Amino acid sequence: MSGKRLAVVGAGAVGGSVVELAREYGHTVTAFADSSSAVVDADGIDVDSTLSRKESEGRVGSADPEAALDAEYDVLVEATPTTLGDAEPGFSHLRTALERDRHVVLANKGPVAERYADLTALERESAGEVRFEATVGGAIPVLSTVEDLTPGHVTAARGVLNGTANFILSRMAAEGLGYEHVLAEAQDLGVAEADPAFDVEGTDAALKCVILANVLAEGDREYTLADADVEGIQNVPGSALELAAEDGQTIRLIGECTPEAVRVSPRLVPQNAALAVTGTRNIVQLETEHAGQLNISGRGAGGPETASAVLADVGRLD
Amino acid sequence: MSGKRLAVVGAGAVGGSVVELAREYGHTVTAFADSSSAVVDADGIDVDSTLSRKESEGRVGSADPEAALDAEYDVLVEATPTTLGDAEPGFSHLRTALERDRHVVLANKGPVAERYADLTALERESAGEVRFEATVGGAIPVLSTVEDLTPGHVTAARGVLNGTANFILSRMAAEGLGYEHVLAEAQDLGVAEADPAFDVEGTDAALKCVILANVLAEGDREYTLADADVEGIQNVPGSALELAAEDGQTIRLIGECTPEAVRVSPRLVPQNAALAVTGTRNIVQLETEHAGQLNISGRGAGGPETASAVLADVGRLD
Repeated sequence: MSGKRLAVVGAGAVGGSVVELAREYGHTVTAFADSSSAVVDADGIDVDSTLSRKESEGRVGSADPEAALDAEYDVLVEATPTTLGDAEPGFSHLRTALERDRHVVLANKGPVAERYADLTALERESAGEVRFEATVGGAIPVLSTVEDLTPGHVTAARGVLNGTANFILSRMAAEGLGYEHVLAEAQDLGVAEADPAFDVEGTDAALKCVILANVLAEGDREYTLADADVEGIQNVPGSALELAAEDGQTIRLIGECTPEAVRVSPRLVPQNAALAVTGTRNIVQLETEHAGQLNISGRGAGGPETASAVLADVGRLD
Repeated sequence: MSGKRLAVVGAGAVGGSVVELAREYGHTVTAFADSSSAVVDADGIDVDSTLSRKESEGRVGSADPEAALDAEYDVLVEATPTTLGDAEPGFSHLRTALERDRHVVLANKGPVAERYADLTALERESAGEVRFEATVGGAIPVLSTVEDLTPGHVTAARGVLNGTANFILSRMAAEGLGYEHVLAEAQDLGVAEADPAFDVEGTDAALKCVILANVLAEGDREYTLADADVEGIQNVPGSALELAAEDGQTIRLIGECTPEAVRVSPRLVPQNAALAVTGTRNIVQLETEHAGQLNISGRGAGGPETASAVLADVGRLD
């Protein structure tokens, strides 16, 4: 695996971790941008001083952020926040890279969830390749497993794809507490955001399922968030979990996708089922043509965890 | 993924399934050998008539078996039975392929468990690459996940790697039956061999752990079966499982490997732990530097299942 030059756009937890870990994986960061600035160095940026500057001054460098897209690099790592609809500015970043025949590794779900057909069209016209392991299940190797099996051999994918919602439901079940109480606890722990809607309404899980459905459909049809049938956990009462427990069952927010449909909803699962992961863990269950059912579970989110998926993708590029 | 020409050596459940599924994955079988014969066709063998001939006459063709190694092919699939010590004849098959600068995909554990240093030395001298996903955990993508993380980022690997032993222990626990009784049941079902030693004594699980340890050690040291500390399930009494259950625990044959040691033994695990898979399922748990703990479970054996891992490896070759 040869070392590559990375331009990292997005300086949040994921972008910062990619920059921090790149050298360990044999790569060099030649550009790094946040929303208002960039630092560029064809010989490799000074990672430590850049991260210090970001922490103390709130910016990574003194160049304009666009300078990162103009830099010399082999792979653009797009780690700006996920946006819906036109998936901008992330989509333009990847378009710029592909038009320069550079590779793109996405941690940003927007382009692959909302503009998959546009993305694959650009990729066909480019010598660059687009990979996006980090967009589904964080550290869990979901998309590379689907790729190795070949998407046509995967008949369905389902799983627990949002750690915040799973933490809340598994705590409600374990402690017999109500939703509002556990949500407040999750917010105190930093497991849920101040505005938790994206997680508890099922939107985040749905985006990941839409991405999976796009991969499984292999171009036969294109999915966007609007195609997903989504129900979150906000209305799951503690009593439902108690009733379920009497029957050896529990409730989890399960996303399911086949090449025909995408659905996210709270579902009853046996307490000892593989799908009944606890805490913030995620799990993906793949139904395959020849290999039966594969279960892959692990940490679905976090800076270093997601960076590890980004760097695995860099390693899989030619 | 471009289609490749495969020479398949070994016509048991795995070799037969690889030949049967190759076209579905876009590849052509140009040679196929069993222990006493071969069929060779540079344009692709007639798969259906060859498999019929094997079933009715006990041979795949009318050529000498060595003809397969002399054929025109891109990838040798080595699926002859695992042998220990000198790992022959499998090792010679792979040597011949590498000396011709062809790739090798192994389902045969012998060469990577018993002669890893010899194999990697031959690989360094060759333009061909050796892959061996199918040797550890059947359909479960263990080695490709380790490769994507990079072995240096995996601090330990442990798991249930033998379906026969796991079936026996999980049945003993579920039904409160003794070892001999459940072993007989497993043999009737075809889950255990007439001579079950390889499975119940822990040898098969140990070979898989030795292979994992060789990969994790990245050439710093070489492991063989002799380096593994192995204890099987033959002496686990039903009473031990009952006692464990009183404490919410159960017993599984667990293999564990780090870059320093390889050990297989029956162990207590919580009943609801990921490691407490049931039936013939396998699970591998990877401890990683940045991505926490990853669990991957699925079918560890079977013709189509293992062939699916072989064909995933073919797809990952350049």
